This record gives sequence, structure tokens and C-alpha cells, in this order.
Amino acid sequence: MALLADDDLGRGREGTDPAPYRAAFATIDADPNQIFCVADRDGEIVGMQQITFIPGLSRKGAWRGMIEAVRVARHRRNEGIGGRMIEWAIAECRSRGCSLVQLTSDRTREEAHRFYDRLGFTASHVGYKMTL
Amino acid sequence: MALLADDDLGRGREGTDPAPYRAAFATIDADPNQIFCVADRDGEIVGMQQITFIPGLSRKGAWRGMIEAVRVARHRRNEGIGGRMIEWAIAECRSRGCSLVQLTSDRTREEAHRFYDRLGFTASHVGYKMTL
Repeated sequence: MALLADDDLGRGREGTDPAPYRAAFATIDADPNQIFCVADRDGEIVGMQQITFIPGLSRKGAWRGMIEAVRVARHRRNEGIGGRMIEWAIAECRSRGCSLVQLTSDRTREEAHRFYDRLGFTASHVGYKMTL
Repeated sequence: MALLADDDLGRGREGTDPAPYRAAFATIDADPNQIFCVADRDGEIVGMQQITFIPGLSRKGAWRGMIEAVRVARHRRNEGIGGRMIEWAIAECRSRGCSLVQLTSDRTREEAHRFYDRLGFTASHVGYKMTL
């Protein structure tokens, strides 16, 4: 929760009541196609991410891995934690037979874009969102 | 399969053996967080799309709907079929309690971008992909 709220975009949209986060975590944890993982350094949670494994028809019935909710604690950025997290996620997608890894990043997160470029991702798509 | 292959980007990456597509469809069909649907007009399949419902932690534990693999038969485009499909998908996401609908579209699909803009989506994100 602290990682989600301590974010330039997340600040306005997160809450302080832990109940909905606990319920959501239980749902994610129970789904074999979801992995929610944290980065631990000396007993402190310094990063988080979620990977969703999605079966598809296109590309001859390929699975794809989608990475969401990537956050690194503000005071531990630029130490390579995020890179190691994403590399772990890519390896996990590969080990599950995914032929594609994808993620979207807000247009305003320019530092994140350089980060994903460096990791070997291609900014090939436009990401559309609609709040309901 | 015909809809996937008859696509400017799909042409090179789809196969002609139905077996992997059948297996992939069975996997999608068995997953309660996946909907694969087709648009039928006078008994002919003229469109397809897949919706994935993803539980998350951010935004107070919100669910999001992701739309993938949107295709409309080439000879039935510009008849409003795609718009009705996406509107159906948005309604389905809303009825399942999602607070966000998202999708990505290849940068080169300019016609699709105007289509999603018209439907009320915001091109707020950059979509990254990595082929494994």
C-alpha cells in the first residue's frame, strides 16, 4: 500500500483502509494465472509487481505475460532493483512458455520509458484506457 | 483463424494447422476470467475479441478489463460492427465491476486509433512488447 500511494500518479487514487487491498491480494493469490511478487532487501519490501499470464488465440495460440503495478520504493530507486524485478518477470514468463511479454507505462513516466527501452522492450503500441 | 490471418500484421505470424488454435480456445474457454466472443451476422462470423478480467491491488484493489485480439472481417469493416463489439465489451467490464478498461493497439494501426478515440478511450499510455 505504501508503495502504491508513494507514487506521483497513485497519490490521488489510493486509499488508507487496508481491507480492499487485503481482499484484492487474496483474489490475486488464488488465481494460478497471477503472480504478485515483492522485492525484499534486508527484510524491507522495496519493490512490487504483478504478472498476469494470458492465454490467447493469435500467434498460433500463444500465451503472453503482462506486467502491471511495477513500483520501487522512492528511497531505493536507481539501485537496479527495478531492472532485476523485470528481468525476473521476463524469466518467469519464458519458463511458463509465453511468447510475448507486454506492459504499458503512462506517457508522463519518461524515466520509466528509458528504463524499459534499456531492458530490451519495444515501444510498439499505443495504450488506451477508459475509466468506468 | 481466418480473421487472425487476414490482417496486415497477422499475416506473417499465424499458422494453418487448427490444432494449436483449438487447444488455445479450450484453455480460454475454461478460464472464468477470460471471455472470447465473436460477432455473428446472418450466420457468418464477422468479428472477434477477447476480454481478460484482471484483479489488481492498485486503485484500491480494482479489477480491470483488458481487450485483446479485436478483429473485424475485411469485407465487413466500416459498418459499425467493431464499435458494437467494443461497446459490448465495455458493458461486460462494467457489469463485472471493473473500474478500468484497457487495450493496446499497434502504433501503425492509425485507423484503429481514431476508432478508439471516438469510442471514448484515452491514449494515455505507451505499450511495450518483448517477443521471447
